[in-house]
Amino acid sequence: MEFNLQKAILILERTPAVLDSLLRDLPKDWTHRNEGENTWSPFDVVGHLLHGEKTDWIERTNIILQNDLNISFTPFDRFAQFEDSKGKTMNNLLDEFSALRNANLKILNDLDLSERNFTLIGRHPNLGKVTLKQLLASWVAHDLGHIAQITRVMAKQYKNEVGPWKEYMSILNK
Amino acid sequence: MEFNLQKAILILERTPAVLDSLLRDLPKDWTHRNEGENTWSPFDVVGHLLHGEKTDWIERTNIILQNDLNISFTPFDRFAQFEDSKGKTMNNLLDEFSALRNANLKILNDLDLSERNFTLIGRHPNLGKVTLKQLLASWVAHDLGHIAQITRVMAKQYKNEVGPWKEYMSILNK
Repeated sequence: MEFNLQKAILILERTPAVLDSLLRDLPKDWTHRNEGENTWSPFDVVGHLLHGEKTDWIERTNIILQNDLNISFTPFDRFAQFEDSKGKTMNNLLDEFSALRNANLKILNDLDLSERNFTLIGRHPNLGKVTLKQLLASWVAHDLGHIAQITRVMAKQYKNEVGPWKEYMSILNK
Repeated sequence: MEFNLQKAILILERTPAVLDSLLRDLPKDWTHRNEGENTWSPFDVVGHLLHGEKTDWIERTNIILQNDLNISFTPFDRFAQFEDSKGKTMNNLLDEFSALRNANLKILNDLDLSERNFTLIGRHPNLGKVTLKQLLASWVAHDLGHIAQITRVMAKQYKNEVGPWKEYMSILNK
């Protein structure tokens, strides 16, 4: 499937509602348990998505649009959420994520991007040259990948409880 | 995490809304593409979940409650959706799934199950003896696992479009 901005936005704009329907008002048993040492709980993942809204996608879009390869992206802090989310509830994070995502999509829309912009290039600190199209496609795939992660982590809380069915559920064996 | 019926229902009852927020009104590019030969699209997965509501979870619950080990579960048809979903849209399947899930949770609630019931045993055609608790935990994990599958399949549609970011997204390499 080729990248298409309108079809990408169809996914990006629904992520807050997906996270909400999946996680809002759940007890911590479902939202704050992870897959084991050095893994993330659903709460950690939502904090990570929130940090991306604050520091990553739109900022990098703006850097690419400046069209100056001397400017490299700021490395993304994959652990920022452990500090940022302290003292917050899952519902707090969901509210913040929803507000920021909506604001970012408004900014994206106002940029009025066209095919000509999509091939503009930015410099990623580790990956080297990347296009705006690749950044925006990654934003979408990143959302979907982390929703998959959240549901996998939740499913695994019943890894022992499913008994012999574990054999049939590849998600529990990942 | 130990099985708890109320906490299990918290997940089961939200699956229709999760699928809705993720899939309703999307173009077929997002809902009808799979991961390659002999794999399922999001449309196929929702059809599979729907078939489970019709033939699997509640029927097996009732069989276990009869407490007669001479009765084995009917094998689940993992390919029924390819026939059943013909001529239907994703929105049709989402409507059907939501109605059946709500009806099944009403039935489950009316059974007024207690700890005493959870250790009752049924006979699975392949897995042998399974308890009611394991069946109900599997229902939950099965929902979550298939939501993870749906989002993975969707993410993979941008496998090439993300360019060098593919390296960072384990979901695209599964």
